[in-house]
Amino acid sequence: MADSMKGLKRTHYCGEVTEIGAEVVVGGFVERVRNKGGVVFIVLRDRTGVVQLLFNDETDRELFDKAASCRSEYILMAKGQVRERESKNDKLKTGNVEIFVTDLRILAKAQTTPFEIVNDTKANEEIRLKYRYLDLRRAPLQQNIIMRHQIAKVTRDYFYENGFLEIETPMMMKSTPEGARDYLIPSRVHQGKFYALPQSPQIYKQLLMVAGYDKYIQLARCFRDEDLRADRQPEFTQIDLEMSFVDSEDIQECVEGFIKRVFKEVLDVEIQTPLTRLTFADAMNRYGSDKPDTRFGFEIQDITEAVKDIDFSVFKGAVEEGGTVRAINVKNGAATYTRKEIDKLVEHAKGIGAKGLAYIRWADEPNCSFKKFLGEGDLEKICAAVDAKEGDLVLICADKTKTVLTTLGALRLICAKRLDVIPEDKYNFLWITEMPFFEYDEEHNTWVAAHHPFTMPMEECLDYLDTCPANVRAKAWDLVLNGTELSSGSMRITDYELQQRMFEALGMTDEEIEAKFGFLVDAYRYGAPPHGGMGIGLDRLAMIMCKAESLRDVTAFPKVQNASELMSECPSFVDDESLNVLGISVNKADE
Amino acid sequence: MADSMKGLKRTHYCGEVTEIGAEVVVGGFVERVRNKGGVVFIVLRDRTGVVQLLFNDETDRELFDKAASCRSEYILMAKGQVRERESKNDKLKTGNVEIFVTDLRILAKAQTTPFEIVNDTKANEEIRLKYRYLDLRRAPLQQNIIMRHQIAKVTRDYFYENGFLEIETPMMMKSTPEGARDYLIPSRVHQGKFYALPQSPQIYKQLLMVAGYDKYIQLARCFRDEDLRADRQPEFTQIDLEMSFVDSEDIQECVEGFIKRVFKEVLDVEIQTPLTRLTFADAMNRYGSDKPDTRFGFEIQDITEAVKDIDFSVFKGAVEEGGTVRAINVKNGAATYTRKEIDKLVEHAKGIGAKGLAYIRWADEPNCSFKKFLGEGDLEKICAAVDAKEGDLVLICADKTKTVLTTLGALRLICAKRLDVIPEDKYNFLWITEMPFFEYDEEHNTWVAAHHPFTMPMEECLDYLDTCPANVRAKAWDLVLNGTELSSGSMRITDYELQQRMFEALGMTDEEIEAKFGFLVDAYRYGAPPHGGMGIGLDRLAMIMCKAESLRDVTAFPKVQNASELMSECPSFVDDESLNVLGISVNKADE
Repeated sequence: MADSMKGLKRTHYCGEVTEIGAEVVVGGFVERVRNKGGVVFIVLRDRTGVVQLLFNDETDRELFDKAASCRSEYILMAKGQVRERESKNDKLKTGNVEIFVTDLRILAKAQTTPFEIVNDTKANEEIRLKYRYLDLRRAPLQQNIIMRHQIAKVTRDYFYENGFLEIETPMMMKSTPEGARDYLIPSRVHQGKFYALPQSPQIYKQLLMVAGYDKYIQLARCFRDEDLRADRQPEFTQIDLEMSFVDSEDIQECVEGFIKRVFKEVLDVEIQTPLTRLTFADAMNRYGSDKPDTRFGFEIQDITEAVKDIDFSVFKGAVEEGGTVRAINVKNGAATYTRKEIDKLVEHAKGIGAKGLAYIRWADEPNCSFKKFLGEGDLEKICAAVDAKEGDLVLICADKTKTVLTTLGALRLICAKRLDVIPEDKYNFLWITEMPFFEYDEEHNTWVAAHHPFTMPMEECLDYLDTCPANVRAKAWDLVLNGTELSSGSMRITDYELQQRMFEALGMTDEEIEAKFGFLVDAYRYGAPPHGGMGIGLDRLAMIMCKAESLRDVTAFPKVQNASELMSECPSFVDDESLNVLGISVNKADE
Repeated sequence: MADSMKGLKRTHYCGEVTEIGAEVVVGGFVERVRNKGGVVFIVLRDRTGVVQLLFNDETDRELFDKAASCRSEYILMAKGQVRERESKNDKLKTGNVEIFVTDLRILAKAQTTPFEIVNDTKANEEIRLKYRYLDLRRAPLQQNIIMRHQIAKVTRDYFYENGFLEIETPMMMKSTPEGARDYLIPSRVHQGKFYALPQSPQIYKQLLMVAGYDKYIQLARCFRDEDLRADRQPEFTQIDLEMSFVDSEDIQECVEGFIKRVFKEVLDVEIQTPLTRLTFADAMNRYGSDKPDTRFGFEIQDITEAVKDIDFSVFKGAVEEGGTVRAINVKNGAATYTRKEIDKLVEHAKGIGAKGLAYIRWADEPNCSFKKFLGEGDLEKICAAVDAKEGDLVLICADKTKTVLTTLGALRLICAKRLDVIPEDKYNFLWITEMPFFEYDEEHNTWVAAHHPFTMPMEECLDYLDTCPANVRAKAWDLVLNGTELSSGSMRITDYELQQRMFEALGMTDEEIEAKFGFLVDAYRYGAPPHGGMGIGLDRLAMIMCKAESLRDVTAFPKVQNASELMSECPSFVDDESLNVLGISVNKADE
């Protein structure tokens, strides 16, 4: 059996031992052992950092031998006196001291780990996820998990101070699939019926407003049974909030305060508020994206006017069909983008749906892909319109406006990354407002709701609801950070009749409405204050603030792309008895 | 359409309007409207309280008419000047003032509610749960939900300040049923496999200690698919914590600090620490319960010695078979407990498993149920042993010790309630320590683990593991408040070999161990600090602190006994397509 810690009580975390002369007791994991003949050094690690333990064979041979027997990842507790160190390490907070140990307990031995516990691991992610409890010992991951804790703490501090109540909403709720698939839970008591895990607490938080709770927040676990992309998890956490007796701006102002606070407290970064506001239409026109990264330029310019006299069928055709000609100026892009590199961009543009891509590459002199169609002064006019100078690369797209914008928006990002002009330490927050209310579903040839069906249209758009869906804008907005959508919000419909109109506009039958949302619609008959709210992705916020590359790096026990957890090998088979009792069967493969 | 709130911004919550002369804007729900001819009073309510609005028909006829048109539960926003009220109401914080309204907006009308929104409702609970969003408007329920929020807040404050990190553990985990049934979630990607909702984050928090996170806390949602009793919910919240480099006492001390803090901050009640500690054995001997209510006396006394000379076969027989004779003195119970009432107690005792119940009822003179067996001085000896005086009732049980204790423990509670001697405002916390490690399963004639299989035995009991299970005590403890178990805790096994022995002692095969806990057992091969933790039922704590009668009164959207939610009617049927995609079928009823 291992030693007991009886009689010892930890006085300091390893990373906090600095006071020379103090008698301390520390506990932790062995980072490494160095045996220098008459002296053994052990670097001991806990979640706060490391400290060096010193053992001298002249002072206590038995203790020395015990220390020398330690291996990496052994669990130790050590008592001793803090001394000044001979060879100091300025990079460490504890780098000037070491502990001269008088009592050492080996609390647990450790077998050799399948990969080395080092900051900069080269082990592949699969093995690290299988032994997640070992990967989680690495300092960079620990720092992420600790920072995530801090972010959550500041979140609660801020919203609580601003009068929000955290109210827990059910995890086992009614299945009302919206957007994504629900995870289902078979009921044992009501055989044949199912609960669903929440995709968000949307319905419940709206009911809390109907019930008069006024300001609600919850750090809520949400679930979506989707095929995972690299940066998705089947379960994720949302800073979910809702406010009453407010309008859009009040909610945005409140969330701005939160953003300012969390960046200041956690990263000591100053975010200027109010944050920039951009309508959806402006964002599309300037950046070709509803979540623009504004840390760099390359904005989209409309050059329809500048090219209107050029006898180039691509340009002319696009304009005649009601489209436009637009361009981005990739500043200083000419040197990087050789002819071959430009070809790749053209292929990329075609992949997005553009018919092609014209360009002006101004290395020594402007080299234009549609040179033969240019008349006197045409080139100068275009260059002036996009402020192109020697060294620049101008990419031009002519097509339906939507295609043009999407294409140039995508190329804008690609080029900025390629040229490495995106500043790492900048946090550009943006409100994207006046989102479209409907989206056109090309496949089914119909207009569908762009948001959940309780979203309030802008008052001035109400008349278009039935006549011109494309014109209807929503009281809905996104919070975007450096090109990532961090959060969505909207005002909700509180008027019973307007809600009915909305459902009808979305093509829902009375039966569907009743089955899915009957109780919610009913609730609004008893009066509801004006209310709206947001859901802010905590995982994504943490990922950005930690400068992590994946949600897995800010999640203690993440799942992989096929929604399994490699450590526990879940999901797993369960015995027939468990299924019988639920009254369900697994279909045979050949069924 | 209703009025808009455009141009108005709330300045005060209703319950906070006190400053005479101030210009304020309030919003809320109409509590009631009184039309006194030339004056209309509206009492407006929000989550902080109520305030009176005043409208005068001489000042503004149109406004007056609008006010008069309001009905209960309408949603209003009102602007006006705060004035001193004529008929004051000292019970209300805002009872000295009223708002003379100059701008009134009816933001939403309300149809008549199915029950009246009053503090002391007489509506049955079923209708209140169906319209939960209306029931949640009632002030007593709002105050509970707000207090629950405060409890959770103080919990986080305390543990964060003490170095705990809140780390989110997965909700979709591996099914390892322990104690209760798991709720299962079919996997779409891995057909035929299932996730389970956590019964607790036990495994994950232990792995976090293996990973060096040192102090973990989480307000964790837990799930148990059990047949609900009155005070259970299928999902509940646990203040889940785990600490490293500590022993039992360190954890208890930490939790004591929390208890002290939360009662002080939320209720302004002073809890004396350290809390009383009682071993399991002492608790059973003195109170016949492992969760004794110590707010009153009636302690169990061993009177075997005092009755040893009495020739009463019931006493003699019990002692001869290795049992005991014990008694409780129900102080001042003689008057209440007539012969007929005592008969009921006897029946109750038999229901628990006792063969019978002897008694001494000392009204005017001691009346003893076994009088004819008494010798000279016997009665006095018994009365002296239990300190019985005139007016008392002594209940005596002779049987196997366990039966005696359980019986008297139950009667003790019944009598205390009947005599109304339990002080309402007392909070008696207790640590019950040295819990038995094994429980004897009479049905299967075998010893089973009394706790989860990672619980550490007391060092001095290790030798009994294989030889004498009854003698093994665990490093496990309960926190008891006023007779309710609030929390359990234990130290965990960190030694790989001891864990193997434990599994074997519990009759698990290697295959079972591997399938259920393989990854956890593996983890301990890589070293783990000594660690232990607790899970404190947040719902139950909130229920006690709110003096609520049911968990439903401290849960925003509770489920009822058959695990359904009456408001949304969940669980519900889902369409075949959803099941197909999961590869499962619902069994036909006749299968």
